[in-house]
Amino acid sequence: MSLSFSIAATDGPARLGTITTPHGEIETPVFMPVGTLGSVKGVPQHLLEELGVQIILGNTYHLYLRPGHEAIREMGGLHRFMSWDRSILTDSGGFQVFSLNELRKVSEHGVEFRSHLDGSSHFFTPERSMEIQIALGADIVMAFDECTEHPAGRARARESLEMTSRWARRSKEYFEAHKHEVPWAFRIRKKKTQDVSTPVSRAGESAREPSSAQPDKSSGVGRDVGDETQSLFGIVQGGMYSDLRRESAERLLELDFPGYAIGGLSVGEPRELTREIIASTLPLLPKDKPRYVMGVGYPEEIVEYAAMGVDMMDCVLPTRAARHGLLFTSEGRMNIKNARYVRDQQPADSKCACMVCARYTRAYLRHLFVSGEPLAAVLNTIHNLSHYLDTMRSVRHAIKLGELRAKLSEATPVTEQTS
Amino acid sequence: MSLSFSIAATDGPARLGTITTPHGEIETPVFMPVGTLGSVKGVPQHLLEELGVQIILGNTYHLYLRPGHEAIREMGGLHRFMSWDRSILTDSGGFQVFSLNELRKVSEHGVEFRSHLDGSSHFFTPERSMEIQIALGADIVMAFDECTEHPAGRARARESLEMTSRWARRSKEYFEAHKHEVPWAFRIRKKKTQDVSTPVSRAGESAREPSSAQPDKSSGVGRDVGDETQSLFGIVQGGMYSDLRRESAERLLELDFPGYAIGGLSVGEPRELTREIIASTLPLLPKDKPRYVMGVGYPEEIVEYAAMGVDMMDCVLPTRAARHGLLFTSEGRMNIKNARYVRDQQPADSKCACMVCARYTRAYLRHLFVSGEPLAAVLNTIHNLSHYLDTMRSVRHAIKLGELRAKLSEATPVTEQTS
Repeated sequence: MSLSFSIAATDGPARLGTITTPHGEIETPVFMPVGTLGSVKGVPQHLLEELGVQIILGNTYHLYLRPGHEAIREMGGLHRFMSWDRSILTDSGGFQVFSLNELRKVSEHGVEFRSHLDGSSHFFTPERSMEIQIALGADIVMAFDECTEHPAGRARARESLEMTSRWARRSKEYFEAHKHEVPWAFRIRKKKTQDVSTPVSRAGESAREPSSAQPDKSSGVGRDVGDETQSLFGIVQGGMYSDLRRESAERLLELDFPGYAIGGLSVGEPRELTREIIASTLPLLPKDKPRYVMGVGYPEEIVEYAAMGVDMMDCVLPTRAARHGLLFTSEGRMNIKNARYVRDQQPADSKCACMVCARYTRAYLRHLFVSGEPLAAVLNTIHNLSHYLDTMRSVRHAIKLGELRAKLSEATPVTEQTS
Repeated sequence: MSLSFSIAATDGPARLGTITTPHGEIETPVFMPVGTLGSVKGVPQHLLEELGVQIILGNTYHLYLRPGHEAIREMGGLHRFMSWDRSILTDSGGFQVFSLNELRKVSEHGVEFRSHLDGSSHFFTPERSMEIQIALGADIVMAFDECTEHPAGRARARESLEMTSRWARRSKEYFEAHKHEVPWAFRIRKKKTQDVSTPVSRAGESAREPSSAQPDKSSGVGRDVGDETQSLFGIVQGGMYSDLRRESAERLLELDFPGYAIGGLSVGEPRELTREIIASTLPLLPKDKPRYVMGVGYPEEIVEYAAMGVDMMDCVLPTRAARHGLLFTSEGRMNIKNARYVRDQQPADSKCACMVCARYTRAYLRHLFVSGEPLAAVLNTIHNLSHYLDTMRSVRHAIKLGELRAKLSEATPVTEQTS
């Protein structure tokens, strides 16, 4: 098995589960921090580990442009390149490419686009996206889809979902034919046959001993040697039309993916509509497979979606907001640059146990931010990620206890705190 | 005693020593990382601790402007403000103010200058510098001096050193009259009378219990309660004239400072001249007190100066260079953005044991830098600081063994490595 999903408890539609990939276990519902270019911006990998991050997301479009998927493949894949031995998921590149607007041209074959860096011309197809994602070597990769714009009329949304369906089939066919080319396949096999526990090694040593020095923490005892590859998830599209979402889901299910994502949300639609589409689409997806809603959300949203039965979510919000001085706390959102914090000796969040709240005051965080100190982004990001991860931890705990409904009623306020 | 200095071993003119301040011990010769605005740029305080940093430098000019010394005083001083319970040294503001060139006007009374931030007008005098530095509360503070420009004729250098001498006396007089106003005096006294060992406390708790929660790690058992204040060092000026340096030193010695700095170097003069001035000035300073050369230098320079008998040095070089992609290694300097590192799987420095070299490759560091990732500055800075601190560790070890001369002959190459 390249991916397994087990459900330990349920609470209404919400599920407490464990996804196991070739690089370890992921407790679900999970929030996945975004590491666009092979780095969660500003946070060293060992601090992500200390935060308890079990999976991060990488962006295929960005990594394809810099440093390039061939370079990453030759260096052993993204895990080894960035020295991250836990799980990784890559998006298909579709969302970023479709965000380029003026710089792209879509056809049945694929998408021609120009690099946002130098204007150079590139072409992504489902096959190319798979080739790149196999080279990057994330544990979970995504089918190449067209992220339908919002608003889109019914005819346009149908046309788009139908192309996404055809692209899903092409993605799957290419992936199945090439999935054993993943750069770490040999490392994982060798590791399991040797059954060694290799400590984190020096970068230089892993270069000299490429086949064994990578600290892949697979817990794959008992699984078939040589049967570990990446896993490809399909993506439901269909715009803001529930019946089209159903059609999209049905066509994807024919392809039998090990997990399913709901894409095409957080594209400017009202939050209530996001919720409606998630609510109407989730029951169409297999109960025994992970369900992933892409690109969400605020803390109160990820709690709500988890309660609806979503297992995986990702969003740039906690990391990007941190770099703009917006902190998420148990009492709401906090603009740390606000003058009222200038001599505030409290931690950002008095209920937070993160290393930032344990050590630094609001006054200091404000000073760092308004002074343009690089440490501001580092500390703010660590706090926001900690808040998101703690939120998901408490959701998992509530599911276990069957108390998620009670938790929802005491949701984090969305307005800025006034204390 | 507010500062003690003991020498455990010597090797030629070099000394292996320990400076003890109200916030702990400092092994010398020491390199002090610069934390201009209350942060060593990009590095969280707990990582500085893990690196073994025992003292950092803060810049009076910058902290005076942001967040302001009164704000820092009210928040308990710089140690508490930035949550750094080891030693701190602040400069006098003189060097920064004199660097403003067009924006300053010097008189016997002091220096009028305009803020580089908003052009607002300010006036620094020796008394004002002391007032600010007492509010900041560093363990070691510096007399307000005029940093003589280079080149300067003999008459100009003499005139300048004479003013620095008069300012040193005024600094000392103000300091002695006000030194008990340091914001942590009460905390230190209370801590000693209680003889409690307070663990690192939450930011919020220290705000609620200002008198005991600050984790000041003074090892002052047996010293007189209430006798702990900051310590004021004098600064030798005199331009590039050895006889004027002698005159400056002699006039400072009359004031009996607990430590002496050699200032006015690294102002554009050739390195050989820097060395000559240090060599001719050091013998004029008391052997039983710390000797500090301000604003130096490259790794090979700090080794050389330590061998000449310098106990303390500081420089922005390792931190600033890191942000520009320049790494210091055992094999020389490395521009990590160089294309030759694009797939280089070695650590930045194969002889370095730092957390960066233990985990990341040159290829990854290069990718982070050329992609503008914030993590680049974080990791590069950690490595460079580690290199500087390791360099000083090995110097101290060599002094202990009486092998410093041998170490000098195998000094780090200064050219970029070619491996």
